[in-house]
Amino acid sequence: MKDDQYYLSQAYLEALKALNHDEIPIGCVIVKDDKIISRGFNQKEETFLVTSHAEINALNKACKKLKTYHLEECVCYVTLEPCLMCASALIQAKIKRIVYGAISPKNGACGSFFDVTTLSNLNHYPLITYISDEKCKSIISNYFKNKRLTKEKED
Amino acid sequence: MKDDQYYLSQAYLEALKALNHDEIPIGCVIVKDDKIISRGFNQKEETFLVTSHAEINALNKACKKLKTYHLEECVCYVTLEPCLMCASALIQAKIKRIVYGAISPKNGACGSFFDVTTLSNLNHYPLITYISDEKCKSIISNYFKNKRLTKEKED
Repeated sequence: MKDDQYYLSQAYLEALKALNHDEIPIGCVIVKDDKIISRGFNQKEETFLVTSHAEINALNKACKKLKTYHLEECVCYVTLEPCLMCASALIQAKIKRIVYGAISPKNGACGSFFDVTTLSNLNHYPLITYISDEKCKSIISNYFKNKRLTKEKED
Repeated sequence: MKDDQYYLSQAYLEALKALNHDEIPIGCVIVKDDKIISRGFNQKEETFLVTSHAEINALNKACKKLKTYHLEECVCYVTLEPCLMCASALIQAKIKRIVYGAISPKNGACGSFFDVTTLSNLNHYPLITYISDEKCKSIISNYFKNKRLTKEKED
């Protein structure tokens, strides 16, 4: 049986795809019964869609594949802490667990900027696991560092 | 120039479409420069997608049409108070205003179940207007009333 770290490394491979598309590098995989059933990476710039985050892309693929919007038996592995939109979508899908590898201090809705599970009256509460992962952390911090350096050179 | 009530009645027409598809009847239109640029209705059952809410469907169509995920000049008219996922998506799109015609006590994230605008550090705060609209209220309450009656007959 593969462990959380393995699936997080698979989410990281998706983040690399986003990087190759010059998108903010965030990747996600959805796992059911110890199998990856869908993959997604951030494609906001490419698609113009505000909802085209890694989690939503993977989530929608999983819904289509399983022909249901209830993913009670599924786990979401994502390189960066989900934002409020994505965390809410995952909760509505009744996802069993959310595992992420880097904190998003400004936008993370699983404990940083906000903790969505503190809301009462949600109809589902996923388990949330943060695993401090060097690759997940460095891919996003390096991306923004490079963007800043490029901007400084341009100014 | 058309008023909020007019655009809310257009959102209601979208909710009727959802009803005809046997979906929870919620409809939405996105307006820019006094013109409807996109329409959407709830299609969760049909598509299996957890994100296929009226607002997200209309929002994504607007993003595609304008080739941007920033809709600063746009107003979202929706028959029912947006949920947390949709409210967050609309905020990320920097939508100017959200206008809704019926309160969603259990799931509404614009003042009922939760008020998303109470969060500090959002990078955008849309204006939110609730217009108590009989048609918007009755279409959703009748839908659930009928579902309950059908269920009681079955039991």
